[in-house]
Amino acid sequence: MTSEDRFVERLKELLPLRPGLLVGPGDDAAVVEIEEGRLVATTDLLVEGVDFLPGEDPERVGRRAAAVNLSDLAAMGARPEFFLLSVAFLRQRGLEYPLAVARGALSRTAPFEAALAGGDLSEAPQTVVSIAFWGRPEAAPLLRSGAKPGDVVYVSGYPGRAAAGLRIARMLHAFASQGAPPTPRLIGLDPTKEAELLAAYHDPVPRVALGRALAREGLAHAAIDVSDGLGLDAGRLARASGVRIVLERERLPLSPALTAYAEVEFLDPIELVLGGGDDYELLFTSEAGAEGEVTAGNAGWGVAVHRVGVCEEGAGAILRDRAGDRNIAGLGFDHLAGS
Amino acid sequence: MTSEDRFVERLKELLPLRPGLLVGPGDDAAVVEIEEGRLVATTDLLVEGVDFLPGEDPERVGRRAAAVNLSDLAAMGARPEFFLLSVAFLRQRGLEYPLAVARGALSRTAPFEAALAGGDLSEAPQTVVSIAFWGRPEAAPLLRSGAKPGDVVYVSGYPGRAAAGLRIARMLHAFASQGAPPTPRLIGLDPTKEAELLAAYHDPVPRVALGRALAREGLAHAAIDVSDGLGLDAGRLARASGVRIVLERERLPLSPALTAYAEVEFLDPIELVLGGGDDYELLFTSEAGAEGEVTAGNAGWGVAVHRVGVCEEGAGAILRDRAGDRNIAGLGFDHLAGS
Repeated sequence: MTSEDRFVERLKELLPLRPGLLVGPGDDAAVVEIEEGRLVATTDLLVEGVDFLPGEDPERVGRRAAAVNLSDLAAMGARPEFFLLSVAFLRQRGLEYPLAVARGALSRTAPFEAALAGGDLSEAPQTVVSIAFWGRPEAAPLLRSGAKPGDVVYVSGYPGRAAAGLRIARMLHAFASQGAPPTPRLIGLDPTKEAELLAAYHDPVPRVALGRALAREGLAHAAIDVSDGLGLDAGRLARASGVRIVLERERLPLSPALTAYAEVEFLDPIELVLGGGDDYELLFTSEAGAEGEVTAGNAGWGVAVHRVGVCEEGAGAILRDRAGDRNIAGLGFDHLAGS
Repeated sequence: MTSEDRFVERLKELLPLRPGLLVGPGDDAAVVEIEEGRLVATTDLLVEGVDFLPGEDPERVGRRAAAVNLSDLAAMGARPEFFLLSVAFLRQRGLEYPLAVARGALSRTAPFEAALAGGDLSEAPQTVVSIAFWGRPEAAPLLRSGAKPGDVVYVSGYPGRAAAGLRIARMLHAFASQGAPPTPRLIGLDPTKEAELLAAYHDPVPRVALGRALAREGLAHAAIDVSDGLGLDAGRLARASGVRIVLERERLPLSPALTAYAEVEFLDPIELVLGGGDDYELLFTSEAGAEGEVTAGNAGWGVAVHRVGVCEEGAGAILRDRAGDRNIAGLGFDHLAGS
């Protein structure tokens, strides 16, 4: 038996039985039963040192990789069903390493009853985790392209916290590599707040219940998941829909943890909200007048939804405050800047 | 617009219209129409310097990555439909690089009318290409587990040629990095034969027509694609089916190009046939007595099918010749040997 065969044997022990999964890991491909309709499919590739910190705990990497994909499905209003998981890693790390990645992914997907159907292993100088995930849309899928002038713009949760969490994680990583005590922390920031920001980065919660409800109840005209920065992703939604998105500064939700962090670091928290990235919140637009319905659902979605702006005729993404309008569609994370 | 957005704009220009693809690249996820039934899904991750040679032409890498996935679908007897393509690359290589990977993949998938539905880009110190591919089975999917004692064992094409091609490619790569002329070649081997072996490695032909026909006509009890070595993959099929596979040495198909290469390199060509890997041929078993039907299809499948052995009661994979029986289930490529 090769290492990959042994991996599959051990992986199978982690997998619960899933109705509809006719052939799981261990054959040339997976086979699942499927009903007529529409299939929503997405994929994300995470590279060590680029998309997550070097030496990151593999279980956390797997959990985050699953969340990133689930967030894409959430933004389409889809119910997650099955995924394929590939891991490339330094073979010296042993088979425990990809098993830990799989355990992490499974811990994130289990609440949605989504199942691991197959995958691949390879070797690489740094870890690469690739997930392909598919699911079924509730009613018509939510697209980026349906926003209309006059729509109200909403965002879930508190964008910017993940960017603060990443900055803290990088700093702790640098401390640790210089021989700091095992649990260093940022001086001047309350440990509970630090933990909240770190969790927002390390363990984002995909807004699957929200996305599904928006699609099912026909509440959203357009949606996108905020992965690269609220400004940049607002610009993408605006471009796809042919509208201008105006975010109102005083409406942007600021978590007390983010405000406290920004104070310690002498930063403007709004810059982290607009340009941070890694939030995996949903940005969506709805008919003006639907605000009661949209915000009424908050309890069942597990996340607060905030009204943050409006769609106008025009193009681009704008931050509006007393000082005037400012273009924000360039604020965010360009994975390949310079290419 | 970010680099990734520009990439998607340029990618869309390469994509033909595909019925059933409701939302292609450029939204949070792809949306396709699907009929009731079964879905066959597979994924493969290729890493530069591990799964292909450093500095390999990106179009060739994309074409090969698509072939590797198509071969998995072929081994299940499935008709390919849609795929997701992720590329991580050095950003200094520019957006032309992932576009070339996509062009290569599309050139391989076009004959099957399979469509690119979405994907992801990231950065990495070496290229990583990940494809997830799905399709629909013809009748019942071909599994590794259906072989029975008394079955006849077949293999398509000429295993071992790709392993010879890889050895030649490595040698030419080493020559080139030492400043050899642009088209060095292996002394003593006919250039046509060298080209045949190199093509078998660089541009494997997935046996989709063969796999679909075997499933549709109920001709195979079990099938596997030979990716890691005929010995090793025969062992996998034997283990999944609970049989012993006996390959008869004098029946193993030897291409004249492989024989010529082996002679130049003082190798036993049978060792390359059994332990080479990268063949992407199909190994399958059929009812004894079906040989006429199985070999009659050769013309339509674009590849010769050779009877190479039998299934017996027992376990393992064996090479049988006048000298006796030899265990071959360990002959092949263990991607993670040592882990």
